[in-house]
Amino acid sequence: MNYCSNCGTRVTFKVPPGDERKRYVCDVCNTIYYENPKVVVGCIPQWKDKILLCRRSIEPRYGKWTLPAGYMENGETVSEGAKREVLEEAGAQVHIISLYGLYNLPSINQIYIIFLSRMIDDNFSPGSESLDARLFDRNEIPWDELAFIPIQDTLRQYINDWPSGKFPFHMTDITLKK
Amino acid sequence: MNYCSNCGTRVTFKVPPGDERKRYVCDVCNTIYYENPKVVVGCIPQWKDKILLCRRSIEPRYGKWTLPAGYMENGETVSEGAKREVLEEAGAQVHIISLYGLYNLPSINQIYIIFLSRMIDDNFSPGSESLDARLFDRNEIPWDELAFIPIQDTLRQYINDWPSGKFPFHMTDITLKK
Repeated sequence: MNYCSNCGTRVTFKVPPGDERKRYVCDVCNTIYYENPKVVVGCIPQWKDKILLCRRSIEPRYGKWTLPAGYMENGETVSEGAKREVLEEAGAQVHIISLYGLYNLPSINQIYIIFLSRMIDDNFSPGSESLDARLFDRNEIPWDELAFIPIQDTLRQYINDWPSGKFPFHMTDITLKK
Repeated sequence: MNYCSNCGTRVTFKVPPGDERKRYVCDVCNTIYYENPKVVVGCIPQWKDKILLCRRSIEPRYGKWTLPAGYMENGETVSEGAKREVLEEAGAQVHIISLYGLYNLPSINQIYIIFLSRMIDDNFSPGSESLDARLFDRNEIPWDELAFIPIQDTLRQYINDWPSGKFPFHMTDITLKK
C-alpha cells in the first residue's frame, strides 16, 4: 500500500494513537487502514458414497484437484458463499449438512471454513475456473494431485471419520513454510 | 474508495474480465480491489458459575455491556484472536473450551466467531476500551444494556443451553435493519 485510497496522498506505516500495531495511515485525511484475514468458504459435496472434486483451470495450482472453495464475498453468509462456490466451480447444487472444518492459516492471513453438504441431484459440470469436475469414490481420491494443504487435511479427516459415520467439527492450525 | 492504493490513480468501479461482481479497479496498474467480510472473534469467559462481561468505553455503544470480542488481526488464528480480545478488553486469561457460535451479519459484511472459554484464575480488570469488567451470575445479565445483537444472541443461547450442561455449536444468520 502506497497511497491513501480516500484522498490519494502517500500513506505512512506506523502505530496509530491508542493502537498496538502498525497500520497504513493517511496523515492528511486521518484514514487508518486495517488489514484483516480473509475467509475462504467451501464444501465437501456428497452424492451417495462419492464426493465431488474439481480440477483447477487457473493459477495457483493449475491442473490440481480441489474441493470447491473460494473467497467469501461481501453481502453473503458463510453457507451461502460455500454453496455459491460449489455452483460456480462444479456446477452442482447442494444442501448444507453441517460445519465440518475450520482451518487457520495465520502465515497467509486466511481462514478456511468447510461444510459437509449433499448434492440435490447428480447434475454437475466444470465452471469457468475448472478444467474438470468428477465424482470420486473414497479410494479414488487423487492424493498426490490435490491443490491446497487445507483441502488435503479436510479430505484426510473426512476419510478418517467415514467408518464411524459421524462427521464432527474439526479445528486445525496449519503452518505453511514460506 | 477513490484512488488506487498502489499507484495513486483514480479507480473505476466495474466488473473485471471473467468476474461477476463490480470491484474497484485501477486502469493504469490493473490492480483489482476485492472487498471481503471481516471476522470478529470473541469469548464467553467462564469463572465457576459466572461469566465475565465488559462495559465499553468507546463508540459505538459507549457504556453498553458486551462479551470481549473484536476484529481478528492478520497473523493470528481465530482462537488466538479471541484470547487476545479477552486479555485486551477484560484483562483476563482464558483457555478455549470449544467453538460455540458463528453469526453471519451479511448486511454489514461481518461474521462473529465466539468461543466458550474458562478463565485460568479470577484476575481481571478493564482494558483501555472498557469502563468496567465484571463477573455476572446467569440471573444478573444486563439484557437491556447489551451492546450488539450477536452478543445478545450468544448470551441468550448460552442461558438456554445452561440447564442441559451441554453447549453445542450454533450458527445463526442475523438481519440488521439499516
